[in-house]
Amino acid sequence: MVNPVLVEVTRGALVESRHRGMIAVADAAGGLVYAAGDIEAAVFPRSACKAIQALPLVESGAADAYDFGNREIALSASSHSGEDAHAALAAEMLGRAGRGVEDLECGAHWSFQQPVLIHQARTREMPDALCNNCSGKHAGFVCACCHQGIDPKGYTGYDHPLQAQIREAMADVTGALVGTDVCGVDGCNIPTYAVPLKALARGFARMATGEGLSPTRARAARRIIDAAMAEPYYVAGTGRACTALMEMAPGRIFAKTGAEGVFCAVLPEQGLGIALKCEDGTTRAAEAMVAAVLARLLADDAALSERLRLMADSGLKNWNGTDVGRVRAVLP
Amino acid sequence: MVNPVLVEVTRGALVESRHRGMIAVADAAGGLVYAAGDIEAAVFPRSACKAIQALPLVESGAADAYDFGNREIALSASSHSGEDAHAALAAEMLGRAGRGVEDLECGAHWSFQQPVLIHQARTREMPDALCNNCSGKHAGFVCACCHQGIDPKGYTGYDHPLQAQIREAMADVTGALVGTDVCGVDGCNIPTYAVPLKALARGFARMATGEGLSPTRARAARRIIDAAMAEPYYVAGTGRACTALMEMAPGRIFAKTGAEGVFCAVLPEQGLGIALKCEDGTTRAAEAMVAAVLARLLADDAALSERLRLMADSGLKNWNGTDVGRVRAVLP
Repeated sequence: MVNPVLVEVTRGALVESRHRGMIAVADAAGGLVYAAGDIEAAVFPRSACKAIQALPLVESGAADAYDFGNREIALSASSHSGEDAHAALAAEMLGRAGRGVEDLECGAHWSFQQPVLIHQARTREMPDALCNNCSGKHAGFVCACCHQGIDPKGYTGYDHPLQAQIREAMADVTGALVGTDVCGVDGCNIPTYAVPLKALARGFARMATGEGLSPTRARAARRIIDAAMAEPYYVAGTGRACTALMEMAPGRIFAKTGAEGVFCAVLPEQGLGIALKCEDGTTRAAEAMVAAVLARLLADDAALSERLRLMADSGLKNWNGTDVGRVRAVLP
Repeated sequence: MVNPVLVEVTRGALVESRHRGMIAVADAAGGLVYAAGDIEAAVFPRSACKAIQALPLVESGAADAYDFGNREIALSASSHSGEDAHAALAAEMLGRAGRGVEDLECGAHWSFQQPVLIHQARTREMPDALCNNCSGKHAGFVCACCHQGIDPKGYTGYDHPLQAQIREAMADVTGALVGTDVCGVDGCNIPTYAVPLKALARGFARMATGEGLSPTRARAARRIIDAAMAEPYYVAGTGRACTALMEMAPGRIFAKTGAEGVFCAVLPEQGLGIALKCEDGTTRAAEAMVAAVLARLLADDAALSERLRLMADSGLKNWNGTDVGRVRAVLP
């Protein structure tokens, strides 16, 4: 099937570019509340499923053993901007397990956020692995290993015991088959598994409600979701969409972006999970799409819904500050 | 019509993202040599038509009066990376007309290229208008005004005499109607006109062959195309696609990118113009598309064609240098 146009980018009176995609909104039983495009398609969730990947850290007792609060747990499920506070907290997490930056296997990169990159360029010769947007997740991985007596060396490999735990959690939460045939290597070197978009939506509904999960897993899932909602800055950073969405409605919206135009979200009050992908992998479109679908689902709260609609239909300015067009969601 | 998928982004064994788009290859008479997608669609050429926008500078005699060589003319048709050499040459061009950075109306921005941005962050408090990727074009605009005795103030406005000259050139070269109904404001604040993709392709064929253009315009057009091919670094910059394509086959390929996934190119030997747009506005796809279509058109040169194919099907590595997938053109 051809996915529908879900976002238009306008310039003057014309549509300049178009983004197609698919959206699934499901409850924990898999009942669909909203669907657009091919929601059966297998999608790499990339970083949008970091909350699921953080389950072993909490379930194993490692988070408690190392006295992790909301900030540390939020960072373990984050794609942070590499701000100094993010890198420092990742280092502190590693330190609690007697480990350090040398144990991270995620690689290093300069921040994707221009203001942060400018700051880094002025204060560092080169970025280290703590600056990697995944360093909090990887610090959590190292801590999960150490607490369980597993040697963290090689923890990013498909055959490492930690990745087996993550794979089991991913399969259990989403109900999808995850193995080598749907496996790719993610930007931070760990395996990523393509799962049907509707299974991902249902999985996030289960993360919030605990339905269908073991009591231990249900508690861990809700703790991760709650920690992210309590500390949205540590899930992304200054000016980022995930942070803005969660700050808009404290405790009522969980939202997490992933590379290549993926977004997952949860409405805990309604027990709904949301998973979406922009077909072409563009972040600006995924952000407009998630804001638009949240605005619909939260229509009962007029003020909140209006703020979400502003994010789903935002103005484009040029270098002189002139209004030149819009990025607007056009959901069917 | 639904535009075909022209570029696939793979991860492991799966296709992760897809880019749709349209491509037109035409001769100066408008005869189509290759077409994919909706080539009747009106497309904002954005910076891909800077060679056309530079016509008044050369036709008016300003380029000669200010002793501009290939570098200056190439920069006047460039979207440069803001490297020090680019900013310095834009300043020098303005100086030849007794003008300076304060006359530029393009606004200022940090470089879009990470290595250049890092250098700028370490050597500047803030970027100025000379760092704007369009500063060479704007320096050319200011010079074109000064030589013709036109006050450059307000030269970015639709009603300014310089924009009227550019509009006339755009209509003449492409044969399309350009006016307020197809006008948007570009990133650097000048008017941009949406024209049918096939008209843009034909227009670039005419820029190379001069067919259908007045003798003065034909000479100016070829001089701009030749200057860009002679000094590709001044059209874009280090590591950029336009520069790489023109360096691959000196004097045989002209190529110029535009925002929102546009690319225009010329094969002077064959008298062909190429215009393409990725529907969703993504640069990685437009680059793969232009390389793929050039590889086909230059198939007689096996070595060159192979280099172009490598650019049309390039590997993706993650932060650890692991191969994770490809960005590959899949032209029908």
